[in-house]
Amino acid sequence: MLSPSANSPKKAFKRIALVGKYQAEGILAHLQDLAKLIKSLGCEVFIEAGTASHLGLKDFQSKQVAEFSGSIDLTVVLGGDGTMLAIGRQLAGSNVPLVGINMGRLGYMTDIPIQDVATVLPKIIAGDYEADTRTLLDAVVLRNQKEINRALALNDVVVNRSGISGMVELAVSVNGSFMYNQRSDGLIVSTPTGSTAYALSAGGPILHPRVAGILLVPIAPHSLSNRPIVLPEDVMISIKVVEGHEVIVNFDMQSLTNLQSGDTIEVSQSKKTISLLHPRGHSDYKTLREKLHWNEYPSTF
Amino acid sequence: MLSPSANSPKKAFKRIALVGKYQAEGILAHLQDLAKLIKSLGCEVFIEAGTASHLGLKDFQSKQVAEFSGSIDLTVVLGGDGTMLAIGRQLAGSNVPLVGINMGRLGYMTDIPIQDVATVLPKIIAGDYEADTRTLLDAVVLRNQKEINRALALNDVVVNRSGISGMVELAVSVNGSFMYNQRSDGLIVSTPTGSTAYALSAGGPILHPRVAGILLVPIAPHSLSNRPIVLPEDVMISIKVVEGHEVIVNFDMQSLTNLQSGDTIEVSQSKKTISLLHPRGHSDYKTLREKLHWNEYPSTF
Amino acid sequence: MLSPSANSPKKAFKRIALVGKYQAEGILAHLQDLAKLIKSLGCEVFIEAGTASHLGLKDFQSKQVAEFSGSIDLTVVLGGDGTMLAIGRQLAGSNVPLVGINMGRLGYMTDIPIQDVATVLPKIIAGDYEADTRTLLDAVVLRNQKEINRALALNDVVVNRSGISGMVELAVSVNGSFMYNQRSDGLIVSTPTGSTAYALSAGGPILHPRVAGILLVPIAPHSLSNRPIVLPEDVMISIKVVEGHEVIVNFDMQSLTNLQSGDTIEVSQSKKTISLLHPRGHSDYKTLREKLHWNEYPSTF
Amino acid sequence: MLSPSANSPKKAFKRIALVGKYQAEGILAHLQDLAKLIKSLGCEVFIEAGTASHLGLKDFQSKQVAEFSGSIDLTVVLGGDGTMLAIGRQLAGSNVPLVGINMGRLGYMTDIPIQDVATVLPKIIAGDYEADTRTLLDAVVLRNQKEINRALALNDVVVNRSGISGMVELAVSVNGSFMYNQRSDGLIVSTPTGSTAYALSAGGPILHPRVAGILLVPIAPHSLSNRPIVLPEDVMISIKVVEGHEVIVNFDMQSLTNLQSGDTIEVSQSKKTISLLHPRGHSDYKTLREKLHWNEYPSTF
Repeated sequence: MLSPSANSPKKAFKRIALVGKYQAEGILAHLQDLAKLIKSLGCEVFIEAGTASHLGLKDFQSKQVAEFSGSIDLTVVLGGDGTMLAIGRQLAGSNVPLVGINMGRLGYMTDIPIQDVATVLPKIIAGDYEADTRTLLDAVVLRNQKEINRALALNDVVVNRSGISGMVELAVSVNGSFMYNQRSDGLIVSTPTGSTAYALSAGGPILHPRVAGILLVPIAPHSLSNRPIVLPEDVMISIKVVEGHEVIVNFDMQSLTNLQSGDTIEVSQSKKTISLLHPRGHSDYKTLREKLHWNEYPSTF
Repeated sequence: MLSPSANSPKKAFKRIALVGKYQAEGILAHLQDLAKLIKSLGCEVFIEAGTASHLGLKDFQSKQVAEFSGSIDLTVVLGGDGTMLAIGRQLAGSNVPLVGINMGRLGYMTDIPIQDVATVLPKIIAGDYEADTRTLLDAVVLRNQKEINRALALNDVVVNRSGISGMVELAVSVNGSFMYNQRSDGLIVSTPTGSTAYALSAGGPILHPRVAGILLVPIAPHSLSNRPIVLPEDVMISIKVVEGHEVIVNFDMQSLTNLQSGDTIEVSQSKKTISLLHPRGHSDYKTLREKLHWNEYPSTF
Repeated sequence: MLSPSANSPKKAFKRIALVGKYQAEGILAHLQDLAKLIKSLGCEVFIEAGTASHLGLKDFQSKQVAEFSGSIDLTVVLGGDGTMLAIGRQLAGSNVPLVGINMGRLGYMTDIPIQDVATVLPKIIAGDYEADTRTLLDAVVLRNQKEINRALALNDVVVNRSGISGMVELAVSVNGSFMYNQRSDGLIVSTPTGSTAYALSAGGPILHPRVAGILLVPIAPHSLSNRPIVLPEDVMISIKVVEGHEVIVNFDMQSLTNLQSGDTIEVSQSKKTISLLHPRGHSDYKTLREKLHWNEYPSTF
Repeated sequence: MLSPSANSPKKAFKRIALVGKYQAEGILAHLQDLAKLIKSLGCEVFIEAGTASHLGLKDFQSKQVAEFSGSIDLTVVLGGDGTMLAIGRQLAGSNVPLVGINMGRLGYMTDIPIQDVATVLPKIIAGDYEADTRTLLDAVVLRNQKEINRALALNDVVVNRSGISGMVELAVSVNGSFMYNQRSDGLIVSTPTGSTAYALSAGGPILHPRVAGILLVPIAPHSLSNRPIVLPEDVMISIKVVEGHEVIVNFDMQSLTNLQSGDTIEVSQSKKTISLLHPRGHSDYKTLREKLHWNEYPSTF
């Protein structure tokens, strides 16, 4: 449904990397089965180095994510959306697409159940799939005009107070135009991908992955009219810490930086993207219905 | 800020139409002043026919909105967002831009206060302005596969129950893909322009006018996870009335159609747009701050 | 949990009335089984007259709801919350408690699944139960200081616009003190019982049935800070229709009255209550968890 | 309006303590004026010891808050709601009522503007006032069944994650009945007084001060149906930290305790209350209208 590549010629994937959420129960057996399946399709199999070492998986070649670009054609992720996030961010701009497989609990990005793998994965590897492109955010933390941190985020860049401070006060500008001074628990800057994660919990709308926009969601804002805002994808959002003790910025809930009053976070859309592959006939709406308990059929109030 | 036309060559406007909210107190004197001001700039002035006849304004030529295209270069609207909506919808696709002037109560689209007209309007007429393009929705009502109504909306297409029915049940599909079956008071399909109107009251996010998206906001949905959704601008949204007595669809709160179970409303973005002109330096965020009581300066919790 | 009557002496119920949602599939057989079960416990069985006539159930005595008071000790309702609402309102102040049985779809008030009836109902009839008392609202509609309608509501009194009017404007006072002038789709005045019905869809909080309060929930209010408000149970709420075409007030979604500008609805808590009986060990929170898909166990984000 | 004491005999207050937000600009002069005014009414004036020492105010007797009970008849607070909170908590159960005076920015509890003091305070001191009673929460933190902290809260008890942890998971029970397992940024347990503070920002309803209830508001809950809940005032709420790094509990944003997995916070309504005095004719709704920008008069959408 997302930019279906129905009529475009597809390349078959040859060199395939496997990444697993190594802490998950039963993951080793699943990974071994997956690797055998992929091998049986005539593809080369590589296990991501961290996955391999944590699980003691030595039957296959291993490879660092940093080396995927140019030497891997497709990455298969076995785990949850958290694993997908971590790998996705590293593969941004690499031209290595990802396929997400879950082990029972449907994810927004890990949408293929492990039990469907045998029927679904061979088709994807043969080039029969639907692709969707996900954008990332590029965030720079400035202190006294100097960059003190820079990171990509596939879900969100979150500025928030620590538990011990009463509130954070942020001055937000867009393309140099002052937007508002916000007192709140913090502010989420989210991609469409991140709109179903933390931003949704904080009261944000759902953005379809193909929407060319960046979402701002205030967290428990003091002013009741500080509502979520969707901005065009080409803007530069500048968030200045006016006041607040122990303010922190994180990127996809990782790579934290402690902020001081006066620090500024500049967020814009990255030029790098990632590509997610789904089985043909995939529906984002079906995933949303299942994850959010939306009604499918009429019922009595 | 919205696609600022800073560096593009500007044409000066010669033939200028005036539209007024004729019911408003004091409107006649304001319109006469405006007309004189515009004349003094060497432009031709036309009064919109309805405005002229309601106010008995005979000192100037009058013209029907339907004749503006090709014979008017710029339309100046004096009133509120409601007046702007009505005229804007009629001028969609006409290449006649609009300027909105309010008489004391700031509007989202009528952003120039009447007292600033003398300093601001001459510059705009001389070609010194910022333009932003607003999209419209094109909605068709189908009964037994036959079109029974079609209309444009600058703000929103709203399907909702009448006061006497308990609830409406709607099946919503996007590009032929089933999204959900929703039980609620109704559903708002909104443009970015409409996101600050009824959709905001119903819990929707604010969409910047330049966001290429269509907003769906359920009204009092039975399922608490039926959240607002932003879709890409190129989709076809299909809303089928599954059940509900006295269901009504409206377009910008006008042009009502009574619906029956089985009726379907198809909504997509129109190819027609309108263009709003603002004084240089205009900030949408300033308008939002003022309309929504956003804090500008630090304050104590 | 709700005022458990654990240590209080219980009377056994002798004369038991059965009410069914006669439109429901399979209801007749279920009612007959229920009647036999109750008879086998040595109780007298009466079928509510409407239920009996619609289903052609002639094997048992029938009785009008209006005659229950004084001649029925317990009413067993088989159906959904809608059936319970209708009967509950009629039994307000009658001292006839109610038990609610559902046929598969858990209700907030019809909390006993039909398959549990044989084990659960005999205990309740023997006096082993937990009771909770539900309050009702008493609403009067005034036009030119004259009462034009009066009704009780177990869930809510709702003033709202019909689908064809743009908005309703209501002036709300509490105990004669002006609260606000509200522009919205309408206003819900709800009991704690009604807080899980329409009020919840419109953004209201959940009120535990034992909370001594009345809930006001605005429907799509124009002002974003018009939030739900909980008032003490002893107040008089006065809602005046300032403006609005085709405004309607309903009581538990029934007994509609068309309103005019200037009409006033006065709402206060009724002195009449109803009593719901539950199996010992009943938990409202369990019902909420199941109805609202609340997590019971830890899961991964 | 809140339990107006119109017809009850009033004692005149003789021994009056003054507390000031000593950091506020211009506070010294205002306090001196206030003290003189009170003296001129024939009352004894005491300055709260901390206020006196910070401001170097030596012209009047000073007294520790801990000594107010029995030796002070009325406490006048000059500052904001924060100052009121801090003093109110200390005076809980003391039978010393409070009056709140603000210096320009209206507070929910500090509702008398400084410029009205000369006309309003003499009447209150003479016994012409309206009183409202505010409840407090009593919270105990347990680790391995042992109490490690205990505190009162006039606004709220807040359990929340620190900025660096992804989420906190809390198991909530009420009177020993399991309610839910919640994944969120945290949970607010609030009095009616606290309902207009942090709880409101997090999406909670407003509770009138006279509502006999305790409010639970989840902060950015993962499950979209984890809505605010109002419980009866006589319950014991137990919140167990299932999982979460750097979880913190605070009481009125003060008196922090770091929590570990397995720690439990038990919250119930305190038997201690405080009493706030207002000028006769005081309206909570007027305060709400002004603080929340509610419309007072009709306006155009």
